[in-house]
Amino acid sequence: MKPIDFWVSIGSTYSYLSVMRLSEVESKTDASFRIRPFSVRAIMVEMDNVPFAKKPIKAQYMWRDIERRAKRYGLYAQIPAPYPLEHFDLANKVAVVGEQEGWCRDYVTVSYRRWFQLGQPAGSDPNLGASLNEIGQDKDRVMELANSPEIHSAYLEATDEARSLGVFGSPCFVVGRELFWGDDRLEDAVEWHESTKDHLK
Amino acid sequence: MKPIDFWVSIGSTYSYLSVMRLSEVESKTDASFRIRPFSVRAIMVEMDNVPFAKKPIKAQYMWRDIERRAKRYGLYAQIPAPYPLEHFDLANKVAVVGEQEGWCRDYVTVSYRRWFQLGQPAGSDPNLGASLNEIGQDKDRVMELANSPEIHSAYLEATDEARSLGVFGSPCFVVGRELFWGDDRLEDAVEWHESTKDHLK
Repeated sequence: MKPIDFWVSIGSTYSYLSVMRLSEVESKTDASFRIRPFSVRAIMVEMDNVPFAKKPIKAQYMWRDIERRAKRYGLYAQIPAPYPLEHFDLANKVAVVGEQEGWCRDYVTVSYRRWFQLGQPAGSDPNLGASLNEIGQDKDRVMELANSPEIHSAYLEATDEARSLGVFGSPCFVVGRELFWGDDRLEDAVEWHESTKDHLK
Repeated sequence: MKPIDFWVSIGSTYSYLSVMRLSEVESKTDASFRIRPFSVRAIMVEMDNVPFAKKPIKAQYMWRDIERRAKRYGLYAQIPAPYPLEHFDLANKVAVVGEQEGWCRDYVTVSYRRWFQLGQPAGSDPNLGASLNEIGQDKDRVMELANSPEIHSAYLEATDEARSLGVFGSPCFVVGRELFWGDDRLEDAVEWHESTKDHLK
Protein backbone atom coordinates (compact mmCIF):
# COMPACT_ATOMS: atom_id res chain seq x y z
CA MET A 1 0.00 0.00 0.00
CA LYS A 2 1.46 3.33 -1.09
CA PRO A 3 1.07 5.99 1.57
CA ILE A 4 0.00 9.58 1.05
CA ASP A 5 2.95 11.90 1.64
CA PHE A 6 1.97 14.39 4.31
CA TRP A 7 4.38 17.33 4.05
CA VAL A 8 4.34 19.20 7.31
CA SER A 9 6.28 21.93 9.03
CA ILE A 10 5.93 22.18 12.76
CA GLY A 11 5.13 25.86 13.14
CA SER A 12 2.17 25.76 10.78
CA THR A 13 -1.04 26.34 12.70
CA TYR A 14 -3.57 24.58 10.48
CA SER A 15 -1.33 21.50 10.45
CA TYR A 16 -2.44 20.87 14.03
CA LEU A 17 -5.85 19.84 12.72
CA SER A 18 -4.38 17.40 10.20
CA VAL A 19 -1.75 15.90 12.50
CA MET A 20 -4.43 15.10 15.05
CA ARG A 21 -6.79 13.58 12.47
CA LEU A 22 -4.40 11.22 10.66
CA SER A 23 -5.09 8.13 12.74
CA GLU A 24 -8.84 8.55 12.60
CA VAL A 25 -8.76 9.01 8.82
CA GLU A 26 -6.57 5.94 8.48
CA SER A 27 -8.93 3.87 10.59
CA LYS A 28 -11.91 4.84 8.42
CA THR A 29 -10.30 4.57 4.96
CA ASP A 30 -7.68 2.58 3.05
CA ALA A 31 -5.27 5.51 3.23
CA SER A 32 -2.08 5.69 5.26
CA PHE A 33 0.18 8.69 5.71
CA ARG A 34 3.93 9.16 5.69
CA ILE A 35 5.07 12.32 7.45
CA ARG A 36 7.64 14.40 5.56
CA PRO A 37 9.04 17.24 7.69
CA PHE A 38 10.43 20.24 5.76
CA SER A 39 10.92 23.99 6.09
CA VAL A 40 7.80 25.65 4.79
CA ARG A 41 9.18 28.94 6.02
CA ALA A 42 12.14 28.79 3.62
CA ILE A 43 9.79 28.25 0.68
CA MET A 44 7.31 30.88 1.82
CA VAL A 45 10.02 33.49 2.27
CA GLU A 46 11.35 32.73 -1.23
CA MET A 47 7.85 33.18 -2.63
CA ASP A 48 7.15 36.30 -0.55
CA ASN A 49 4.15 34.36 0.74
CA VAL A 50 3.44 35.81 4.19
CA PRO A 51 -0.19 35.08 5.00
CA PHE A 52 -0.52 36.17 8.63
CA ALA A 53 2.40 38.25 9.90
CA LYS A 54 1.42 41.94 9.61
CA LYS A 55 -2.12 40.88 8.65
CA PRO A 56 -3.93 41.04 12.01
CA ILE A 57 -7.46 40.70 10.59
CA LYS A 58 -6.53 37.58 8.67
CA ALA A 59 -4.61 36.16 11.64
CA GLN A 60 -7.58 36.76 13.93
CA TYR A 61 -9.82 34.95 11.45
CA MET A 62 -7.34 32.07 11.21
CA TRP A 63 -7.50 31.44 14.96
CA ARG A 64 -11.29 31.59 15.03
CA ASP A 65 -11.46 29.27 12.03
CA ILE A 66 -9.08 26.76 13.67
CA GLU A 67 -11.09 26.97 16.89
CA ARG A 68 -14.35 26.21 15.06
CA ARG A 69 -12.80 23.47 12.93
CA ALA A 70 -11.21 21.82 15.97
CA LYS A 71 -14.62 21.74 17.60
CA ARG A 72 -16.14 20.11 14.50
CA TYR A 73 -13.48 17.43 14.71
CA GLY A 74 -13.95 16.94 18.43
CA LEU A 75 -10.44 18.21 19.15
CA TYR A 76 -9.48 20.36 22.08
CA ALA A 77 -7.44 23.47 21.25
CA GLN A 78 -6.29 26.33 23.46
CA ILE A 79 -6.70 29.28 21.08
CA PRO A 80 -4.60 31.18 20.22
CA ALA A 81 -1.61 28.88 20.61
CA PRO A 82 1.81 30.60 21.07
CA TYR A 83 2.72 31.90 17.62
CA PRO A 84 5.01 32.19 15.75
CA LEU A 85 7.41 29.56 17.11
CA GLU A 86 10.85 30.80 18.10
CA HIS A 87 12.60 27.49 17.39
CA PHE A 88 10.75 26.42 14.29
CA ASP A 89 13.78 24.89 12.58
CA LEU A 90 14.87 22.89 15.63
CA ALA A 91 11.37 21.46 16.04
CA ASN A 92 11.50 20.24 12.44
CA LYS A 93 15.08 18.97 12.58
CA VAL A 94 14.09 16.77 15.49
CA ALA A 95 11.29 15.46 13.28
CA VAL A 96 13.89 14.68 10.59
CA VAL A 97 15.87 12.65 13.14
CA GLY A 98 12.64 10.85 13.97
CA GLU A 99 12.03 10.21 10.27
CA GLN A 100 15.37 8.45 10.04
CA GLU A 101 14.79 6.49 13.22
CA GLY A 102 11.10 5.67 12.88
CA TRP A 103 9.49 7.85 15.56
CA CYS A 104 8.71 10.99 13.53
CA ARG A 105 4.96 10.70 13.65
CA ASP A 106 4.79 10.08 17.38
CA TYR A 107 7.01 13.09 18.03
CA VAL A 108 5.11 15.42 15.71
CA THR A 109 1.80 14.37 17.25
CA VAL A 110 2.93 14.73 20.84
CA SER A 111 4.69 18.01 20.13
CA TYR A 112 1.63 19.51 18.40
CA ARG A 113 -0.57 18.34 21.22
CA ARG A 114 1.61 20.09 23.82
CA TRP A 115 1.75 23.21 21.66
CA PHE A 116 -1.99 23.48 21.02
CA GLN A 117 -3.42 21.87 24.16
CA LEU A 118 -0.95 22.98 26.83
CA GLY A 119 0.34 26.21 25.26
CA GLN A 120 3.93 24.95 25.15
CA PRO A 121 5.73 26.20 22.01
CA ALA A 122 7.09 23.33 19.91
CA GLY A 123 10.86 23.30 19.52
CA SER A 124 11.47 24.79 23.01
CA ASP A 125 11.45 23.36 26.48
CA PRO A 126 9.37 22.15 28.21
CA ASN A 127 7.74 20.89 25.00
CA LEU A 128 10.90 19.47 23.45
CA GLY A 129 12.17 17.49 26.43
CA ALA A 130 8.73 16.32 27.50
CA SER A 131 7.74 15.24 24.00
CA LEU A 132 10.93 13.22 23.51
CA ASN A 133 10.60 11.72 26.98
CA GLU A 134 6.98 10.78 26.29
CA ILE A 135 7.98 8.77 23.22
CA GLY A 136 10.95 7.17 24.93
CA GLN A 137 13.78 9.12 23.28
CA ASP A 138 16.82 10.53 25.07
CA LYS A 139 16.84 14.26 24.67
CA ASP A 140 20.62 14.76 24.79
CA ARG A 141 21.24 12.14 22.14
CA VAL A 142 18.52 13.50 19.86
CA MET A 143 19.67 17.12 20.31
CA GLU A 144 23.18 16.23 19.27
CA LEU A 145 21.86 14.61 16.11
CA ALA A 146 19.35 17.39 15.42
CA ASN A 147 22.14 19.96 15.54
CA SER A 148 24.50 17.91 13.35
CA PRO A 149 25.47 18.89 9.78
CA GLU A 150 23.97 15.60 8.52
CA ILE A 151 20.50 16.41 9.78
CA HIS A 152 20.83 20.00 8.60
CA SER A 153 21.55 18.62 5.10
CA ALA A 154 18.69 16.16 5.27
CA TYR A 155 16.34 19.00 6.29
CA LEU A 156 17.49 21.12 3.36
CA GLU A 157 17.15 18.15 0.99
CA ALA A 158 13.61 17.47 2.16
CA THR A 159 12.81 21.15 1.61
CA ASP A 160 14.33 20.95 -1.89
CA GLU A 161 12.18 17.91 -2.63
CA ALA A 162 9.06 19.68 -1.38
CA ARG A 163 9.89 22.71 -3.54
CA SER A 164 10.44 20.53 -6.61
CA LEU A 165 7.02 18.94 -6.09
CA GLY A 166 5.40 22.38 -5.95
CA VAL A 167 4.68 22.29 -2.22
CA PHE A 168 4.30 25.86 -0.96
CA GLY A 169 2.42 25.45 2.30
CA SER A 170 1.78 23.16 5.24
CA PRO A 171 -0.06 20.86 5.55
CA CYS A 172 0.23 19.53 2.03
CA PHE A 173 -0.82 16.07 0.90
CA VAL A 174 0.82 14.60 -2.19
CA VAL A 175 -0.73 11.70 -4.10
CA GLY A 176 1.28 10.87 -7.21
CA ARG A 177 1.64 14.24 -8.92
CA GLU A 178 -1.41 15.79 -7.29
CA LEU A 179 -1.01 18.30 -4.47
CA PHE A 180 -3.68 19.01 -1.91
CA TRP A 181 -2.95 22.00 0.27
CA GLY A 182 -4.59 22.64 3.61
CA ASP A 183 -6.31 20.61 6.29
CA ASP A 184 -9.55 21.20 4.42
CA ARG A 185 -8.19 19.18 1.47
CA LEU A 186 -7.31 16.08 3.52
CA GLU A 187 -10.51 14.32 2.44
CA ASP A 188 -9.93 15.32 -1.20
CA ALA A 189 -6.46 13.76 -1.04
CA VAL A 190 -7.86 10.54 0.40
CA GLU A 191 -10.55 10.36 -2.28
CA TRP A 192 -7.97 10.98 -5.00
CA HIS A 193 -5.75 8.30 -3.50
CA GLU A 194 -8.64 5.84 -3.59
CA SER A 195 -9.66 6.77 -7.13
CA THR A 196 -6.15 6.27 -8.47
CA LYS A 197 -5.84 2.90 -6.77
CA ASP A 198 -2.58 4.02 -5.24
CA HIS A 199 -3.79 2.24 -2.13
CA LEU A 200 -3.62 -1.07 -3.99
CA LYS A 201 0.03 -0.68 -5.00
CA MET B 1 -36.03 33.57 7.72
CA LYS B 2 -32.78 35.49 8.03
CA PRO B 3 -30.49 34.93 5.04
CA ILE B 4 -26.76 34.28 5.16
CA ASP B 5 -24.90 37.30 3.78
CA PHE B 6 -22.73 36.13 0.92
CA TRP B 7 -20.08 38.81 0.36
CA VAL B 8 -18.71 38.43 -3.13
CA SER B 9 -16.49 40.31 -5.51
CA ILE B 10 -16.74 39.39 -9.16
CA GLY B 11 -13.10 38.85 -10.01
CA SER B 12 -12.51 36.32 -7.24
CA THR B 13 -11.85 32.91 -8.76
CA TYR B 14 -12.98 30.62 -5.94
CA SER B 15 -16.24 32.56 -5.74
CA TYR B 16 -17.26 30.84 -8.98
CA LEU B 17 -17.70 27.60 -7.04
CA SER B 18 -19.89 29.23 -4.40
CA VAL B 19 -21.99 31.31 -6.78
CA MET B 20 -22.86 28.19 -8.77
CA ARG B 21 -23.71 26.15 -5.66
CA LEU B 22 -26.03 28.58 -3.87
CA SER B 23 -29.28 27.29 -5.30
CA GLU B 24 -28.43 23.66 -4.68
CA VAL B 25 -27.44 24.38 -1.08
CA GLU B 26 -30.67 26.32 -0.57
CA SER B 27 -32.72 23.46 -1.97
CA LYS B 28 -31.12 20.99 0.44
CA THR B 29 -31.08 23.10 3.62
CA ASP B 30 -33.05 25.79 5.42
CA ALA B 31 -30.48 28.39 4.43
CA SER B 32 -30.95 31.22 1.97
CA PHE B 33 -28.32 33.63 0.74
CA ARG B 34 -28.30 37.36 0.13
CA ILE B 35 -25.57 38.49 -2.27
CA ARG B 36 -23.55 41.51 -1.13
CA PRO B 37 -21.22 42.80 -3.85
CA PHE B 38 -18.16 44.75 -2.67
CA SER B 39 -14.58 45.52 -3.64
CA VAL B 40 -12.40 42.81 -2.19
CA ARG B 41 -9.50 44.26 -4.14
CA ALA B 42 -9.65 47.54 -2.20
CA ILE B 43 -9.48 45.65 1.11
CA MET B 44 -6.77 43.27 -0.05
CA VAL B 45 -4.57 46.11 -1.31
CA GLU B 46 -4.99 47.90 2.03
CA MET B 47 -3.93 44.72 3.83
CA ASP B 48 -1.09 43.99 1.40
CA ASN B 49 -2.83 40.66 0.90
CA VAL B 50 -1.84 39.57 -2.62
CA PRO B 51 -2.26 35.79 -2.76
CA PHE B 52 -1.68 34.98 -6.44
CA ALA B 53 -0.11 37.84 -8.43
CA LYS B 54 3.66 37.26 -8.59
CA LYS B 55 3.15 33.84 -6.98
CA PRO B 56 3.04 31.53 -10.02
CA ILE B 57 3.32 28.26 -8.07
CA LYS B 58 0.42 29.20 -5.85
CA ALA B 59 -1.62 30.48 -8.80
CA GLN B 60 -1.03 27.24 -10.69
CA TYR B 61 -2.19 25.26 -7.66
CA MET B 62 -5.25 27.50 -7.31
CA TRP B 63 -6.41 26.67 -10.85
CA ARG B 64 -5.85 22.95 -10.39
CA ASP B 65 -7.67 23.05 -7.08
CA ILE B 66 -10.64 24.89 -8.61
CA GLU B 67 -10.69 22.42 -11.50
CA ARG B 68 -10.80 19.44 -9.12
CA ARG B 69 -13.35 21.06 -6.82
CA ALA B 70 -15.60 21.98 -9.76
CA LYS B 71 -15.52 18.37 -10.85
CA ARG B 72 -16.47 17.22 -7.35
CA TYR B 73 -19.47 19.55 -7.50
CA GLY B 74 -20.45 18.46 -11.00
CA LEU B 75 -19.69 21.93 -12.39
CA TYR B 76 -18.11 22.58 -15.74
CA ALA B 77 -15.16 25.01 -15.72
CA GLN B 78 -12.80 26.06 -18.51
CA ILE B 79 -9.51 26.29 -16.60
CA PRO B 80 -7.75 28.67 -16.37
CA ALA B 81 -10.42 31.32 -16.81
CA PRO B 82 -9.19 34.75 -18.01
CA TYR B 83 -7.53 36.35 -14.98
CA PRO B 84 -7.24 38.91 -13.54
CA LEU B 85 -10.27 40.81 -14.78
CA GLU B 86 -9.61 44.15 -16.45
CA HIS B 87 -12.95 45.67 -15.48
CA PHE B 88 -13.35 44.24 -12.02
CA ASP B 89 -14.97 47.37 -10.54
CA LEU B 90 -17.48 47.78 -13.36
CA ALA B 91 -18.54 44.13 -13.03
CA ASN B 92 -19.24 44.73 -9.34
CA LYS B 93 -20.92 48.12 -9.77
CA VAL B 94 -23.39 46.46 -12.14
CA ALA B 95 -24.03 43.95 -9.35
CA VAL B 96 -24.71 46.86 -6.98
CA VAL B 97 -27.29 48.22 -9.44
CA GLY B 98 -28.79 44.74 -9.48
CA GLU B 99 -28.85 44.68 -5.69
CA GLN B 100 -30.92 47.86 -5.66
CA GLU B 101 -33.25 46.60 -8.39
CA GLY B 102 -33.57 42.94 -7.38
CA TRP B 103 -31.62 41.11 -10.11
CA CYS B 104 -28.16 40.97 -8.51
CA ARG B 105 -28.04 37.24 -8.04
CA ASP B 106 -29.19 36.43 -11.57
CA TYR B 107 -26.57 38.78 -13.01
CA VAL B 108 -23.72 37.50 -10.83
CA THR B 109 -24.57 33.90 -11.69
CA VAL B 110 -24.87 34.47 -15.43
CA SER B 111 -21.75 36.61 -15.51
CA TYR B 112 -19.68 34.02 -13.62
CA ARG B 113 -21.00 31.28 -15.88
CA ARG B 114 -19.90 33.17 -19.01
CA TRP B 115 -16.54 33.94 -17.42
CA PHE B 116 -15.74 30.38 -16.30
CA GLN B 117 -17.62 28.34 -18.88
CA LEU B 118 -17.20 30.44 -22.04
CA GLY B 119 -13.95 32.24 -21.20
CA GLN B 120 -15.58 35.69 -21.40
CA PRO B 121 -14.10 38.07 -18.79
CA ALA B 122 -16.78 39.48 -16.48
CA GLY B 123 -17.18 43.25 -16.65
CA SER B 124 -16.30 43.42 -20.38
CA ASP B 125 -18.21 42.72 -23.55
CA PRO B 126 -19.40 40.29 -24.74
CA ASN B 127 -19.99 39.07 -21.16
CA LEU B 128 -21.50 42.31 -19.88
CA GLY B 129 -24.02 42.90 -22.67
CA ALA B 130 -24.94 39.25 -23.03
CA SER B 131 -25.38 38.73 -19.28
CA LEU B 132 -27.67 41.76 -18.95
CA ASN B 133 -29.60 40.75 -22.04
CA GLU B 134 -30.01 37.22 -20.70
CA ILE B 135 -31.67 38.50 -17.52
CA GLY B 136 -33.84 41.01 -19.37
CA GLN B 137 -31.99 44.22 -18.48
CA ASP B 138 -31.21 47.05 -20.87
CA LYS B 139 -27.48 47.49 -21.09
CA ASP B 140 -27.44 51.25 -21.84
CA ARG B 141 -29.73 52.02 -18.92
CA VAL B 142 -27.75 49.83 -16.52
CA MET B 143 -24.38 51.22 -17.69
CA GLU B 144 -25.52 54.76 -17.06
CA LEU B 145 -26.50 53.81 -13.52
CA ALA B 146 -23.36 51.69 -12.92
CA ASN B 147 -21.18 54.66 -13.85
CA SER B 148 -23.14 57.14 -11.71
CA PRO B 149 -21.78 58.75 -8.53
CA GLU B 150 -24.66 57.19 -6.58
CA ILE B 151 -23.65 53.64 -7.44
CA HIS B 152 -20.00 54.48 -6.89
CA SER B 153 -20.92 55.64 -3.38
CA ALA B 154 -23.04 52.57 -2.72
CA TYR B 155 -20.13 50.36 -3.83
CA LEU B 156 -17.75 52.15 -1.47
CA GLU B 157 -20.30 51.92 1.36
CA ALA B 158 -20.71 48.19 0.84
CA THR B 159 -16.94 47.82 0.92
CA ASP B 160 -16.81 49.86 4.14
CA GLU B 161 -19.45 47.60 5.65
CA ALA B 162 -17.52 44.49 4.61
CA ARG B 163 -14.33 45.92 6.11
CA SER B 164 -16.10 46.77 9.37
CA LEU B 165 -17.32 43.17 9.61
CA GLY B 166 -13.79 41.88 9.16
CA VAL B 167 -14.33 40.56 5.63
CA PHE B 168 -10.95 40.30 3.90
CA GLY B 169 -11.62 37.88 1.04
CA SER B 170 -14.24 36.60 -1.36
CA PRO B 171 -16.31 34.52 -1.04
CA CYS B 172 -17.14 35.26 2.57
CA PHE B 173 -20.27 34.10 4.38
CA VAL B 174 -21.46 36.07 7.39
CA VAL B 175 -23.85 34.59 9.96
CA GLY B 176 -24.43 36.97 12.84
CA ARG B 177 -20.92 37.91 13.92
CA GLU B 178 -19.28 34.79 12.51
CA LEU B 179 -17.27 34.97 9.29
CA PHE B 180 -16.65 31.99 7.05
CA TRP B 181 -14.10 32.64 4.35
CA GLY B 182 -13.77 30.56 1.23
CA ASP B 183 -15.94 28.24 -0.81
CA ASP B 184 -14.73 25.40 1.41
CA ARG B 185 -16.46 27.04 4.39
CA LEU B 186 -19.89 27.30 2.78
CA GLU B 187 -21.09 24.15 4.55
CA ASP B 188 -19.65 25.39 7.86
CA ALA B 189 -21.61 28.64 7.46
CA VAL B 190 -24.81 26.75 6.76
CA GLU B 191 -24.31 24.51 9.81
CA TRP B 192 -23.60 27.54 11.98
CA HIS B 193 -26.70 29.25 10.64
CA GLU B 194 -28.79 26.21 11.52
CA SER B 195 -27.24 25.85 14.96
CA THR B 196 -27.96 29.48 15.85
CA LYS B 197 -31.54 29.22 14.66
CA ASP B 198 -31.05 32.28 12.51
CA HIS B 199 -33.12 30.44 9.97
CA LEU B 200 -36.13 30.57 12.27
CA LYS B 201 -36.07 34.35 12.66
